[in-house]
Amino acid sequence: MIKIYEMSQIQDQEIFLRSDAVQDVSRPVSEILQAVRAEGDRALLEYTKRFDKAELTSLAVSGAELERAMEQVEPAFLAVLREAAENIRAYHAKQKRESFWMEEKQGVILGQKVLPLARVGIYVPGGTAAYPSTVLMNAIPAQIAGVEEIIMVTPPSANGEVNPHILAAAGIAGVTRIFKVGGAQAIGALAYGTESIPRVDKIVGPGNAYVAEAKRQVFGQVNIDMIAGPSEVLVLADGKSNPAWVAADLLSQAEHDRMASAVLVTDSRELAGQVAEELERQLATLSRAEIARASIEHNGKIIVARDLEEGIAVANRIAPEHLELCVDNPFDYLGQIHNAGSIFLGRYNPEPMGDYFAGPNHTLPTSGTARFYSPLSVDDFIKKSQFSYYTRPALERDYRKVSLFARKEGLTAHARAVDIRFEEGQA
Amino acid sequence: MIKIYEMSQIQDQEIFLRSDAVQDVSRPVSEILQAVRAEGDRALLEYTKRFDKAELTSLAVSGAELERAMEQVEPAFLAVLREAAENIRAYHAKQKRESFWMEEKQGVILGQKVLPLARVGIYVPGGTAAYPSTVLMNAIPAQIAGVEEIIMVTPPSANGEVNPHILAAAGIAGVTRIFKVGGAQAIGALAYGTESIPRVDKIVGPGNAYVAEAKRQVFGQVNIDMIAGPSEVLVLADGKSNPAWVAADLLSQAEHDRMASAVLVTDSRELAGQVAEELERQLATLSRAEIARASIEHNGKIIVARDLEEGIAVANRIAPEHLELCVDNPFDYLGQIHNAGSIFLGRYNPEPMGDYFAGPNHTLPTSGTARFYSPLSVDDFIKKSQFSYYTRPALERDYRKVSLFARKEGLTAHARAVDIRFEEGQA
Repeated sequence: MIKIYEMSQIQDQEIFLRSDAVQDVSRPVSEILQAVRAEGDRALLEYTKRFDKAELTSLAVSGAELERAMEQVEPAFLAVLREAAENIRAYHAKQKRESFWMEEKQGVILGQKVLPLARVGIYVPGGTAAYPSTVLMNAIPAQIAGVEEIIMVTPPSANGEVNPHILAAAGIAGVTRIFKVGGAQAIGALAYGTESIPRVDKIVGPGNAYVAEAKRQVFGQVNIDMIAGPSEVLVLADGKSNPAWVAADLLSQAEHDRMASAVLVTDSRELAGQVAEELERQLATLSRAEIARASIEHNGKIIVARDLEEGIAVANRIAPEHLELCVDNPFDYLGQIHNAGSIFLGRYNPEPMGDYFAGPNHTLPTSGTARFYSPLSVDDFIKKSQFSYYTRPALERDYRKVSLFARKEGLTAHARAVDIRFEEGQA
Repeated sequence: MIKIYEMSQIQDQEIFLRSDAVQDVSRPVSEILQAVRAEGDRALLEYTKRFDKAELTSLAVSGAELERAMEQVEPAFLAVLREAAENIRAYHAKQKRESFWMEEKQGVILGQKVLPLARVGIYVPGGTAAYPSTVLMNAIPAQIAGVEEIIMVTPPSANGEVNPHILAAAGIAGVTRIFKVGGAQAIGALAYGTESIPRVDKIVGPGNAYVAEAKRQVFGQVNIDMIAGPSEVLVLADGKSNPAWVAADLLSQAEHDRMASAVLVTDSRELAGQVAEELERQLATLSRAEIARASIEHNGKIIVARDLEEGIAVANRIAPEHLELCVDNPFDYLGQIHNAGSIFLGRYNPEPMGDYFAGPNHTLPTSGTARFYSPLSVDDFIKKSQFSYYTRPALERDYRKVSLFARKEGLTAHARAVDIRFEEGQA
């Protein structure tokens, strides 16, 4: 049974979502990365044989394999994948940024160039956690940013094939090349490059403990996205909410994994009790009941707040990955939300709409990091360069100021670089 | 003497700038962080006594201290600080982003809120490396982002005072509160909070090996900026360039520290030789000659390219922190530069203009990371939240698609969260 807390009883520590106990796999991961760096494809093929039980002769997914996959996918699902991709594209297109250029002082031009990363790697898990939505959510923002080469890696099954849904999503999302390799070895390949797999500038996408540790270890060599913790939802619901709907929303998060967190905050003691009962009723019917029950019992909680304002304050302190506002006039509260990855407004907007379809990204900051992190976006696939230009008269006007500043910092060679351009016999 | 390479002779490894050999200080830093976390201000005062030789009774810089500092600064320098701050403000104001909101599908509202971080910490080194420019370059983008509390930490000298230039810059840049504490202990205070120093959401600013390691260790608890390596400049100069100016520009970088890198790429063998001689001549006159010589001898190089196009290609491979284009028509080349932190166009635009005055930031990606990182900007002080809203008819139109998608991923509780809203007896 889920625990119900009164706001006045709850300890500060109990409010926060639990972070995950991380398994230490740094040694084996470091060995795998070294082997990939030294031996390239040979190491990749060997690890794929050992860990995925697949004996491959080539790592690349061929055009024929991709076509076959498209044919294997149910047409109705293919249509949904395409519509979801369109929605994701329309939303992320609004994030695209322009370079700027300014000329506010006579003879001085300043600007900022916005450039796509040249080559990006996307990790997509295989096996039971093969999620085509992951492909769309990672590849489409990269494509909109203008990334020329989007390289996807994903582990094959024992027969050497990749889940057709994953391949179909990759085709729809504009992935450039796909390789059948997973785990830490795939991250090593993307970071260092091998005979078949080119080195990338940034690696994104979710993965197990080995993948996460490998990303940590290659960070600096390449850039990486944030390393996500277990998924979380906080549902803020008023007393008019349907307890069955609220329970269903909490369980949709809880079924992700045992460490997932589902929290209800409500101003209604009655709703709190009804949702607790509904959770029990619905848990009995779920296909992933065991996982969902473990999540609800370990990390689930219901917090009864004095009013919705206090509920909002709790949400801001927790800074959840997903926040549902199941209330009348949800837009009234939007301006008060300071910390949340993705905000779902209204009673007809359950969190799975955002996982798959609405358009915003589903890669979001977890474990309270919405305080300072943002959802994955087009910004994660660009870089900026500054530029400046001075005419001779403009430099002549300003160089003494810069020279003074440099000397105040004790950096006389800095001062000299501006002074020398106006010294007699040097100009 | 600096080494001169022909492009055809140089080995691939030699092109790249050296990365720094990092001193391992993880143990002492971890001990300091634990002590600050456990004992708060008491630990801060003790470490300040031990490392800075200052016996403080209060960590905060008072209003009176700030006023006194402003009076101590030479008026001409105060005017330069103010003008530099204005230029930095004007440039960074162009980086400010707006939230967006879209309603492209009937009944669906999607958007992205852009919010400032609530509280930011700025680390400013003290002692011989007390740079007021650091204060301006870190605090002004935070202020423009809308950060309400900008907390600055900087080590005091043995008499318990802070460099007046640093304090004056803080006053001009809009820093909210200043604390006299440095080193790993200051980073711990910002990450965990103490009785006097509030916990922040992000820590930015340069520091020594202890500060850098402390930032690494608290990363996740709070966000941090990138950890900068030694400074670098690549000057791309044609045969018409004045060798004395080019040498002065290289030395302005070399005086930073022994590990700094100054590289000239030119299409003129004659200029290469002249610059090498000029370096020797000017080195003899520098106040920081010993540091500059070490940098030039260990990391300096001149590369002779066949033509400027080849020179641009080398620059893109090195991805330097600072890139000077000392050529005719420098804007002709701007579109070809893909990897560089800050680009200085023209013969009258030496790199120190960007360190102090022009307006763009001087915190830039080093060690080749301009391939995927960007200069410090207003973007580093904001976070984004997504939001979405569906009306009942809009959800009714789309829910079956989402339900199908969820079932294809094996997540039936996700499917149920949308289905339940239209089930009989549940709606």
